[in-house]
Amino acid sequence: MEGVDYLADERKKTEFDVEEMKIVWAGSRHTFEVSDRMAKLVANDPVFRKDDRVMLARKDLFKNTLRKATYAWKRINELRLSEEEASKLRSFVDEPAFTDLHWGMFVPAIKGQGTDEQQKKWLPLAYKMQIIGCYAQTELGHGSNVQGLETTATFDPQTDEFVIHSPTLTSSKWWPGGLGKVSTHGVVYARLILDGQEHGIHGFIVQLRSLEDHRPLPGITVADIGMKFGSGAYNTMDNGLLRFDHVRIPRDQMLMRVSQVTRDGKIVQSDVPRQLVYGTMVYVRQTIVQDASIALSRAVCIATRYSAVRRQFGSSNGGPETQVIDYKTQQSRLFPLLASAYAFRFVGEWLKWLYTDVTQRLQANDFSTLPEAHACTAGLKSLTTSVTADGIEESRKLCGGHGYLASSGLPELFAVYVPACTYEGDNTVLMLQVARFLMKTVSQLGSGKPPVGTISYMGRIEQLMQCRCAVKKAGDWLNPNAVLEAFEARAARMSVSCAQKLSKFSNPEEGFAELSADLVEAAVAHCQLIVVSKFFEKLQQDIPGKGVKRQLEVLCGVYSLHLLHKHQGDFLATSYITPKQASLANDQLRELYSQVRPNAIALVDAFNYTDHYLGSILGCYDGNVYPKLYEAAWRDPLNDSVIPDGYEQYIRPLLKQQLRVAKL
Amino acid sequence: MEGVDYLADERKKTEFDVEEMKIVWAGSRHTFEVSDRMAKLVANDPVFRKDDRVMLARKDLFKNTLRKATYAWKRINELRLSEEEASKLRSFVDEPAFTDLHWGMFVPAIKGQGTDEQQKKWLPLAYKMQIIGCYAQTELGHGSNVQGLETTATFDPQTDEFVIHSPTLTSSKWWPGGLGKVSTHGVVYARLILDGQEHGIHGFIVQLRSLEDHRPLPGITVADIGMKFGSGAYNTMDNGLLRFDHVRIPRDQMLMRVSQVTRDGKIVQSDVPRQLVYGTMVYVRQTIVQDASIALSRAVCIATRYSAVRRQFGSSNGGPETQVIDYKTQQSRLFPLLASAYAFRFVGEWLKWLYTDVTQRLQANDFSTLPEAHACTAGLKSLTTSVTADGIEESRKLCGGHGYLASSGLPELFAVYVPACTYEGDNTVLMLQVARFLMKTVSQLGSGKPPVGTISYMGRIEQLMQCRCAVKKAGDWLNPNAVLEAFEARAARMSVSCAQKLSKFSNPEEGFAELSADLVEAAVAHCQLIVVSKFFEKLQQDIPGKGVKRQLEVLCGVYSLHLLHKHQGDFLATSYITPKQASLANDQLRELYSQVRPNAIALVDAFNYTDHYLGSILGCYDGNVYPKLYEAAWRDPLNDSVIPDGYEQYIRPLLKQQLRVAKL
Ligand SMILES: Cc1cc2nc3c(=O)[nH]c(=O)nc-3n(C[C@H](O)[C@H](O)[C@H](O)COP(=O)(O)OP(=O)(O)OC[C@H]3O[C@@H](n4cnc5c(N)ncnc54)[C@H](O)[C@@H]3O)c2cc1C
Ligand SMILES: Cc1cc2nc3c(=O)[nH]c(=O)nc-3n(C[C@H](O)[C@H](O)[C@H](O)COP(=O)(O)OP(=O)(O)OC[C@H]3O[C@@H](n4cnc5c(N)ncnc54)[C@H](O)[C@@H]3O)c2cc1C
Ligand SMILES: [Ca+2]
Repeated sequence: MEGVDYLADERKKTEFDVEEMKIVWAGSRHTFEVSDRMAKLVANDPVFRKDDRVMLARKDLFKNTLRKATYAWKRINELRLSEEEASKLRSFVDEPAFTDLHWGMFVPAIKGQGTDEQQKKWLPLAYKMQIIGCYAQTELGHGSNVQGLETTATFDPQTDEFVIHSPTLTSSKWWPGGLGKVSTHGVVYARLILDGQEHGIHGFIVQLRSLEDHRPLPGITVADIGMKFGSGAYNTMDNGLLRFDHVRIPRDQMLMRVSQVTRDGKIVQSDVPRQLVYGTMVYVRQTIVQDASIALSRAVCIATRYSAVRRQFGSSNGGPETQVIDYKTQQSRLFPLLASAYAFRFVGEWLKWLYTDVTQRLQANDFSTLPEAHACTAGLKSLTTSVTADGIEESRKLCGGHGYLASSGLPELFAVYVPACTYEGDNTVLMLQVARFLMKTVSQLGSGKPPVGTISYMGRIEQLMQCRCAVKKAGDWLNPNAVLEAFEARAARMSVSCAQKLSKFSNPEEGFAELSADLVEAAVAHCQLIVVSKFFEKLQQDIPGKGVKRQLEVLCGVYSLHLLHKHQGDFLATSYITPKQASLANDQLRELYSQVRPNAIALVDAFNYTDHYLGSILGCYDGNVYPKLYEAAWRDPLNDSVIPDGYEQYIRPLLKQQLRVAKL
Repeated sequence: MEGVDYLADERKKTEFDVEEMKIVWAGSRHTFEVSDRMAKLVANDPVFRKDDRVMLARKDLFKNTLRKATYAWKRINELRLSEEEASKLRSFVDEPAFTDLHWGMFVPAIKGQGTDEQQKKWLPLAYKMQIIGCYAQTELGHGSNVQGLETTATFDPQTDEFVIHSPTLTSSKWWPGGLGKVSTHGVVYARLILDGQEHGIHGFIVQLRSLEDHRPLPGITVADIGMKFGSGAYNTMDNGLLRFDHVRIPRDQMLMRVSQVTRDGKIVQSDVPRQLVYGTMVYVRQTIVQDASIALSRAVCIATRYSAVRRQFGSSNGGPETQVIDYKTQQSRLFPLLASAYAFRFVGEWLKWLYTDVTQRLQANDFSTLPEAHACTAGLKSLTTSVTADGIEESRKLCGGHGYLASSGLPELFAVYVPACTYEGDNTVLMLQVARFLMKTVSQLGSGKPPVGTISYMGRIEQLMQCRCAVKKAGDWLNPNAVLEAFEARAARMSVSCAQKLSKFSNPEEGFAELSADLVEAAVAHCQLIVVSKFFEKLQQDIPGKGVKRQLEVLCGVYSLHLLHKHQGDFLATSYITPKQASLANDQLRELYSQVRPNAIALVDAFNYTDHYLGSILGCYDGNVYPKLYEAAWRDPLNDSVIPDGYEQYIRPLLKQQLRVAKL
């Protein structure tokens, strides 16, 4: 029935102030209000409807995305939205589009790598969308290894131009979002060649299409790279391919903030620190961690609500069956993901602070914290996106058969999310970078250079190598110090153990290669420690609202103890804990699940997602799942007719055994 | 270039006889030959083309499936294929269709649950496909809990008919494959009501559509349930919904092999043992395990070949870069999946034997091994499908960005595979059944009833509780007895530990519920032991062919030691091994990866998959990946025109800042 809240009983069980938790989740009252307003604006506008997306063939899908993107821009202008509001609005439209790359990569690349002059020329055009830009780095043959890119930019001193060229098939640009069908311009990365000499990879602003008729400019071949994972999902994006046949651009379209090419074809370094690029990476990866908490929380919201609606087994005397959320197996799969969503939210918030801190230091020419900040953001990007991708799929499985329906929203959420494990740095490659940083830190211990920031625990290495867990009863695992020390000892010992094994190799690079799988495990342990410790730091803040802090403490316990249980092999192998203590942690974890249970629905309500944004019948706020599933089924194009197209040609001849006459 | 084998160098490294390995993988020379012939037949026939599948909108997709299914039937008849050949041919067509349910569920249900008379009446019609049937069990409200189904079948003694009815919305049948648009008949499960009394769930043959014009019969509402995960994938199947409004069927359409309803409305049990249904379940789940090894091996074949083609980083002096398959991180993710594919293949083969054994015993009225066989197949279904689903996605990630392209084949393979974790028993629900069986076994130890079959190790419980691992150096982990004892000790101790905790609860059911997450872990340990031990058993057979057995020994080592490493927490917590021994196992594992490496391509060649069946540009046999990716991109409908549809309406007004006039 319309208007009935089928989850009302669940909501009554809540032991904390949901409205205050919404503020905590949003980060501030202001952010909450902006988000709330923008989410509703989008949800109430039929143009932004998205439940038909999975049924559209590629062309219709894409055209519809163009419509939404342009319409969103119109609304942004009409309503004179602030930058913050506009960006929220775009995110609630919840459909990958060329605008993501325009605003998220093209503009920042010019800002970060362009000279003042270049910024003055190009940014106003981009801000008004008089040009649309993409970020064209990856090629068919090279993604992770940017230094291996093959596209060339050869300076021609005669004409004062660069000649951009694709010398091989594998040098074709491949993947840039917005490139395939829309972008008029791109920041193109290419191998700079001056007088026959190579000078590494640089960015160039290249116009790709005519601003008059949208045709590719002479020498340019451009197209879409074709369908990607899932239906709907990322197929709304025109990831593109791009080939250059000796395309000429003026010299001043090389992005020259850091390196300049002079009129006579010499390369000159400016006094701007090269390290600036790391600042940008910290920024981009911080947004990815934020996005991880959002994607994971959406999946968890759907699975949690549906788990409270869904009943299966355990009816006695004709009473209602058990809600599947009451099964401990369901809780042990679901609640750690719920806790992870919160954990990632808070570590993301902290990363935002870190970015500001790094930026200020860079401006003061202080590069001392940069390696640590870089390693930590790389690692957190890798950790949170991997967990989120797996977590979305686990959430889907938690919904049983109905989770497999597109109308559950989970298949599309998964398909659209998973590339986050690959873009902006393949997750394994990133963890190897973290591992390198860890090994360097260990090798420098005692050298008088104390480790800073998230790696500062390594400064207490002697203590961490020797200490033993003091837990005696399950409740001792609620003590933050006990948990923190456990994660620190585990991370430190795994790093040291790798370093010791490494030292046995005469060639350190060979050793690193041979041990890389173990090194990745040590890096994961380090990153999990960061998340745990930032969650504890959050709890040291003043958090208003009845019962809010209490709930977060429970979630923090779930987050850390489920990791301890899952990775108990690490903790046991380093002999920090005993089997008995591991078992006590597990007992405590089970107890914490019981504490989460009555608050589960409210904890996902606190995300404040509209039904539109969630895009899931199983996750709808009122829990009225079954009638909505039933109605949605009828909207499938296959149900346009009772007798399917193909009956006369294929089914009937089959049944009537007239296959010879059938046109096949 | 056409005709060049880009993987030839890899193939030269092979240390074993690939052709003999193909026979081992297929199971026998005969099976190999049939498979090979059918695979080529399908691959060479343009009607069975499937690379366009992901681009089709639902209706076109579905119509095309109808065409393929009917055409396949025509070919089967024209070529007079045997049942074995026909079923292989269907599997190589590799597209879910109503025929899967017709042959895989409808026919077996009648065979298993119908009387001789019923079989005589219905089977010939089904064999000729003069009727098409589906299996209609699951409802909107009930899947796992079959006893909770709400559809009623009320006997009307006046007319000697059953009245089939859907009393609630949640009683709507929901999910049956082939139901939505095609089936003329269904085996419908409903709650039998005789004279106002309920008599549990029974199967009924119900005609759903007219055989003349395909219209639903009076009182029947039927439709497709809408889009599912992914594009292409399972959307070729018309999973359906079905409602009955007092639909009447003759009494003799209840499947009456086990229970009969008499003319005067009484229920009578026949002397056929009820346990027969378990035989069918063993059969169906055995096929699911076979399918797991096939799906996983396809994904691994793609990721392995592409990992040998893909080069990234590590070029020195302008030489070629490193093949990513040479990175130890890549190996540590990929080779355990390769080993798992082989392991599942062999345990599947053994399950086939088990099914024969169970069937023979049933015929001799020997039910003694049934609980063990049932637990073991339930557990293996759960274990292998979970690992396969995760393994396909991991294989996709191993291909970096390009794995996200539909043309990699991996997204569709994932989307079409994952429901195997849910159908035929939700994987968690199944593991809980295994856990129940384990707890029962433990509780009966010493009662004089020795555990049989896969659980017989429990008969040595005292020894297994006390023994300690004797491994002293890495190489000791190559000893099958060392590995087997480790897995046995781990499984036994986890079960006993659960049983001990359980015994502290006054109410055993409450205890089981509270500890269910731990119980599932114990069940997983038991199932992994089964797979490991069946792999070792396979190695005791006579396996011809140069180096073939040696390769399988290496894979068996990888399979067992990667599990030992991954779950080292279990092994350490039960104090069977020391941290040092765990570390030695990991050292040995790394060494085994080096032994797999030169044979990796040949080990996936041994699956003998055609490029058509693999359906992946990244996995193509000749490794000529890049030109094929490039060509495939151009086939996307978005590339039909240089200027995309939507340019005039949306992109141009945006660029020209004429949004007011734009039609939005
Ligand atoms: C949806 C999507 C959107 C994208 N958008 C853009 C865009 O807008 N602009 C753009 O320029 N690019 C874009 N990309 C490309 C993306 O940045 C690359 O795909 C990404 O950097 C990964 O690189 P790769 O594909 O070369 O992976 P590869 O490096 O080929 O990875 C393949 C495998 O090799 C392993 N591997 C590679 N190197 C090493 C190593 N040194 N050690 C150990 N293992 C290694 C990886 O772990 C992985 O398992 C996009 C990609 C996707 C999927
Ligand atoms: C692609 C596909 C094809 C299908 N084809 C058919 C078909 O042809 N015919 C047909 O009749 N059906 C079919 N089905 C339905 C399928 O059999 C059911 O979806 C399946 O049995 C799972 O049941 P469910 O959906 O009710 O899951 P649920 O039981 O609702 O599962 C939801 C969650 O609850 C948990 N849970 C449930 N019970 C317990 C418990 N006792 N203890 C602990 N946890 C529990 C599960 O682990 C899961 O996490 C199909 C389904 C799919 C996805
Ligand atoms: Ca996983």
